[in-house]
Amino acid sequence: MNFTRRFTLAGLLAVLLPVSATVAQVDSLPSWNSGSARQAIVDFVGRVTREGNPDFVPVPERIAVFDNDGTLWCEQPEYFQAAFALDSVKAMAPKHPEWKQQEPFKSFLAGDRTALAEQGEQALLTLVTAAHSGKPTDEFSKSVADWFSTARHPRFNRPYNELVYQPMVELLAYLRVSGFKTFIVSGGGVEFMRVWAEKAYGIPPEQVVGSSGVTQYQLDAAGKPSLLKTAKVQFIDDGPGKPSGINMMIGRRPILAFGNSDGDHQMLQWTMAGSGARFAGLVHHTDEVREYAYDRQSKVGKLDEAWDEARAKGWTIVDMKQDWKTIFREKP
Amino acid sequence: MNFTRRFTLAGLLAVLLPVSATVAQVDSLPSWNSGSARQAIVDFVGRVTREGNPDFVPVPERIAVFDNDGTLWCEQPEYFQAAFALDSVKAMAPKHPEWKQQEPFKSFLAGDRTALAEQGEQALLTLVTAAHSGKPTDEFSKSVADWFSTARHPRFNRPYNELVYQPMVELLAYLRVSGFKTFIVSGGGVEFMRVWAEKAYGIPPEQVVGSSGVTQYQLDAAGKPSLLKTAKVQFIDDGPGKPSGINMMIGRRPILAFGNSDGDHQMLQWTMAGSGARFAGLVHHTDEVREYAYDRQSKVGKLDEAWDEARAKGWTIVDMKQDWKTIFREKP
Repeated sequence: MNFTRRFTLAGLLAVLLPVSATVAQVDSLPSWNSGSARQAIVDFVGRVTREGNPDFVPVPERIAVFDNDGTLWCEQPEYFQAAFALDSVKAMAPKHPEWKQQEPFKSFLAGDRTALAEQGEQALLTLVTAAHSGKPTDEFSKSVADWFSTARHPRFNRPYNELVYQPMVELLAYLRVSGFKTFIVSGGGVEFMRVWAEKAYGIPPEQVVGSSGVTQYQLDAAGKPSLLKTAKVQFIDDGPGKPSGINMMIGRRPILAFGNSDGDHQMLQWTMAGSGARFAGLVHHTDEVREYAYDRQSKVGKLDEAWDEARAKGWTIVDMKQDWKTIFREKP
Repeated sequence: MNFTRRFTLAGLLAVLLPVSATVAQVDSLPSWNSGSARQAIVDFVGRVTREGNPDFVPVPERIAVFDNDGTLWCEQPEYFQAAFALDSVKAMAPKHPEWKQQEPFKSFLAGDRTALAEQGEQALLTLVTAAHSGKPTDEFSKSVADWFSTARHPRFNRPYNELVYQPMVELLAYLRVSGFKTFIVSGGGVEFMRVWAEKAYGIPPEQVVGSSGVTQYQLDAAGKPSLLKTAKVQFIDDGPGKPSGINMMIGRRPILAFGNSDGDHQMLQWTMAGSGARFAGLVHHTDEVREYAYDRQSKVGKLDEAWDEARAKGWTIVDMKQDWKTIFREKP
């Protein structure tokens, strides 16, 4: 084995030196402007990683959880997974001639937005479910990968998975080099995220918690097994479901949590209710020039009650416009 | 930080030296007799960890999954979690005077095994559910820890969590030093196992996959959150549920799986159906003197169809009597 190929200098330092000494010597957050948000993060990490500090937390307990949509990547003008689902329904339509006579597929495929809107939320859910069921898990993963390689965001004209926030990618890496284990805890589909999350964020599949459907084990005639994605919901990892998801899939209470909307409210409460040093952060979308500006009135990523509690309790609020030098990851 | 306190020599070697060189220099499996089972394990680990070998597997993909009951610890004369549940119902009885008139509690508390048996499997399930619901998660964890500190196995007269198999504990450690990430994938309750699994096996809570109930997020009058364990099933991680659980919670197909019963059959099939080098192992309970001997006819841990497929396909079968020098972990 070639030693230098396997271990970067930074990785080696992380092992050979005290963690706090390592991270103090480099600027781990170059895309963050100086300010109270950046300072709160660095202070917290310093306190929990410095041995002898009263707030010191042993490495195995340094669990950090991040919402995905609107926290690690963009969620406007619609959740990217919804865009994937609607594109998928269009792509699947030739194999489903019956959809021409069947709502909500009929209105959607005819581009009749008014008729579709009249059918309410349930119509959208039916379309999303159709895109996420009826195929084996490996086929679904391939369809996700294919979509990312061709679909482009309507405003930024870039592949959706390039629209991840550079400052948050840096924060994830900074936490990991400081001994944290980083998890995604998202309302999004766990199988949708795992296809690209490792490359985008350095978060491996087994550290992605999300919503899921029931899968059905089956053997083909040759005895080869597969998992069929059914239309039945297994678990919704959103709102009060996030603490439940953390309990079911991680089994430890995080010491740091980051979100951006009311869907993250309970996850932040749950994190802060533990003993010892705790950190809760909210990304506030304030930059309509470089990204989007929205909070209390937004249909996607509404930030209202969590915002009030954050202000009342002094949780850290990241102002995208003020706190971030760069929004999106640089083009590769 | 005191460097030597934090990093053992073995851990340091694992980082600084090629993995295969490290593990070849020590006997990692001292409780295993020489034989085909031990040889199959060592051969497999050698092939997937040696760079340049056609079967080499990168570290992040070295996922190993282990059933728990009957594979990592004893499961006779009844599943230990069932023993916990029945003891819990007895302990809870004074707070539930209504149980004296209510089946199956009435027969169980009166010690009327005949009447209880006549009520079938559903009766046992009702008792187990009563022990696992109606309290917050932290209170439940405490009740599990308390039980392990006082309950004793009827035959071995030791705390149940000492009845873990020493050779399997060695195997888990050997795999980890060889770059594997080890997971439990058990039909047992995930919250029951996490209380003691880290200490017993070195497997952290976030690497325990198991069955779970629905938890309900709630805030008390002071705004303090808790998760209430309800009687509703969330997920059953057994039989065909094991590949589904692996898919939902790990998101990668394992390259090594170990079980001992038909409840592990689909997990073993799923593991073996991937591409590249694969390992499937079955613990066969053959030692009625030091532990128990059972397979096709057993009510607990029945090994029948998986056994046939293992023999037909040349999966590794561990004969407890022949292959293991020691059964249980030494007394601390």
